[in-house]
Amino acid sequence: MKVLVLNCGSSSLKYQLIDMENESVLCKGLVERIGIEGSVLKHEKEGLAEKYVVEQPMKDHKDAIKLVLDAVVDEKVGAVKDMKEIDAVGHRVVHGGEKFACSAVITPEVEEALKECIDLAPLHNPANLMGIDACRAILPDVPMVGVFDTAFHQTMPKSSFLYGLPYELYTKYGVRRYGFHGTSHNYVSKKAAEMLGKDIKDLKIVTCHLGNGASIAAVDGGKCVDTSMGFTPLEGLIMGTRCGDIDPAILPFLMRKEGLDADGLDKLMNKESGVYGMTGISSDFRDIESAANEGNELAQATLDAYVKKVQKYIGAYAAEMNGLDAVVFTAGVGENGIGIRAEIASNMEFLGMKLDAEANNVRGKETVISTEDSKVKMLLIPTNEELMIARDTLALVK
Amino acid sequence: MKVLVLNCGSSSLKYQLIDMENESVLCKGLVERIGIEGSVLKHEKEGLAEKYVVEQPMKDHKDAIKLVLDAVVDEKVGAVKDMKEIDAVGHRVVHGGEKFACSAVITPEVEEALKECIDLAPLHNPANLMGIDACRAILPDVPMVGVFDTAFHQTMPKSSFLYGLPYELYTKYGVRRYGFHGTSHNYVSKKAAEMLGKDIKDLKIVTCHLGNGASIAAVDGGKCVDTSMGFTPLEGLIMGTRCGDIDPAILPFLMRKEGLDADGLDKLMNKESGVYGMTGISSDFRDIESAANEGNELAQATLDAYVKKVQKYIGAYAAEMNGLDAVVFTAGVGENGIGIRAEIASNMEFLGMKLDAEANNVRGKETVISTEDSKVKMLLIPTNEELMIARDTLALVK
Repeated sequence: MKVLVLNCGSSSLKYQLIDMENESVLCKGLVERIGIEGSVLKHEKEGLAEKYVVEQPMKDHKDAIKLVLDAVVDEKVGAVKDMKEIDAVGHRVVHGGEKFACSAVITPEVEEALKECIDLAPLHNPANLMGIDACRAILPDVPMVGVFDTAFHQTMPKSSFLYGLPYELYTKYGVRRYGFHGTSHNYVSKKAAEMLGKDIKDLKIVTCHLGNGASIAAVDGGKCVDTSMGFTPLEGLIMGTRCGDIDPAILPFLMRKEGLDADGLDKLMNKESGVYGMTGISSDFRDIESAANEGNELAQATLDAYVKKVQKYIGAYAAEMNGLDAVVFTAGVGENGIGIRAEIASNMEFLGMKLDAEANNVRGKETVISTEDSKVKMLLIPTNEELMIARDTLALVK
Repeated sequence: MKVLVLNCGSSSLKYQLIDMENESVLCKGLVERIGIEGSVLKHEKEGLAEKYVVEQPMKDHKDAIKLVLDAVVDEKVGAVKDMKEIDAVGHRVVHGGEKFACSAVITPEVEEALKECIDLAPLHNPANLMGIDACRAILPDVPMVGVFDTAFHQTMPKSSFLYGLPYELYTKYGVRRYGFHGTSHNYVSKKAAEMLGKDIKDLKIVTCHLGNGASIAAVDGGKCVDTSMGFTPLEGLIMGTRCGDIDPAILPFLMRKEGLDADGLDKLMNKESGVYGMTGISSDFRDIESAANEGNELAQATLDAYVKKVQKYIGAYAAEMNGLDAVVFTAGVGENGIGIRAEIASNMEFLGMKLDAEANNVRGKETVISTEDSKVKMLLIPTNEELMIARDTLALVK
């Protein structure tokens, strides 16, 4: 069985074709600038000397998916001979609201529910729906599954997901904590249990998805009980360009001082903040680290603030779960930031964390990075959301 | 030496006259509705059968302070014979910005600095300045000291006080974490060390000031290293009517949905939220507890969310300090909420907290409420900001 995994953004699209026999990636790629001048598809397959690049106008997601399928079945660069070999399509969907606590076969009802969530994810859900529409037009007989970024977090209790706001904002607009990166938190927490040879039911795990977007989750017995992203993917950690937690009263202050409106606030908090806004250097943590190493004090203070925030969430979730067995690092910074992982793990003996500096000196490899005698195990686990989507898809359509 | 302690709000004023020989309160009282119809002074003194109440128009703080002084020197209800017996006045000042890391004798320069902080505390600092003006007019030769709510938190490192926002918002407007209730956190942390017979330099303490406004501080070696209130007293815990931490992206969402402007957002978050907004019942925690006990599920969920937030901050600060020796409860809910304290202390064994249920069954009394074998000591300490203000005043003017 072969599953095509699609992750559609508003003007971009990522895909992987996965053979579920052995969970291998047959081919994968990226389409950028859909509907914008300069549309391009970049396709790769193991064994290809270089990426297969198609520069061609694509007016919408349907055009893009057609080109993707052309590449997938291409005699030279493709991975299958015929589109009929694609048994199912798994769509990453950002927001499932409260309607989806797990993945779902896409039916007209599911699409309707996704449309109802557009208010909650105005940038993402419409793109996901476009991808679904386009696929159905081109592959009318192939079953499709939606895998939601929010679903894994739906096990959170009310005490974790309610804000201290008027309750009617929850009932009227759905203002509550949803959490994101759920597919990743789900994947790495299960993988951690597997690596530790333990039943996940017996583990209290904090999963740190540290990428350009970043979130932390408390996973108790395999279920998410809390997470740092909230109503939107803005809350929580300091990110590449997102501010994370701030005193919300700063916003009315800035509205008065700078005359910002809703769009201005969103832009400030999502695009102009984070380590980029704090340093003025870059949203890339490697650049911030370099600057700090060269003596830039603001870059150092920014890294310190970033690290402290992660440590505080680990402590908060350890308290919330009344225990901590494992901490997992994943995503760009989590997988590759050797120095940042070391900083996060430093001075955390009180919680039982003890880093093995040598074991930590790796990038992007499944490995335990804590010492033998560390009460809390620390693991580096490259995330694989595509595989998780393909697995869920397989489970629902086979 | 006798110190008059004044805490001026925009239309109210609290006072205590304290004899520093033995730190006893000679008399105290409250003026309400200054500048509003129905102005009233309520004065009390030990031994008085009932409060001495003066209902009389007071057009400003000067009128109010005159009446206070009349009461203080009154033959029947007063505590001293002559205003000359008042050796100094200690003013509670809400916001000292970054200029004041400790209390200061009020000089023209200090007043100027306070005026510069008005932007940061537009409701509070002007009232504090009115109190200072009024006192000087009536007691021109008495030295005055300003004791700042923010001062104790000025030891926070940059990694604790910087937000993930553009750095220029800090340099241009002073947008950073300041923290409040500093006088209380300072008082109870020192008192905790005293009660435990330890040098505060050797202690890692989390102080929980849980009143209608509420904040938590991490006090490491006697110095504040982090606190939950931020740029304003809105951030952090769920409070009586304040929302505390929320996803800041909720605000632009509500601006679009409800057409709220800056004032509307401030009102929503400060006056219509917290346990009041969550339940629609009351801002008084006793009412929420009663409702929960009667089976109101929303009241129970609200209490659960409140308690969880406190637990998470304790865990976060334990991680930040890499240790935890003591947790202190103070202020209205902290001093009187037997059930809430018990909930906060429950399922916290991982951090070393073990409550003595019997010892906890008290209100408003200095006492240790953890078990003998609890690694982390838990203490109930009634706060005494007035005494702290008087002590600082004495230290600076004697």
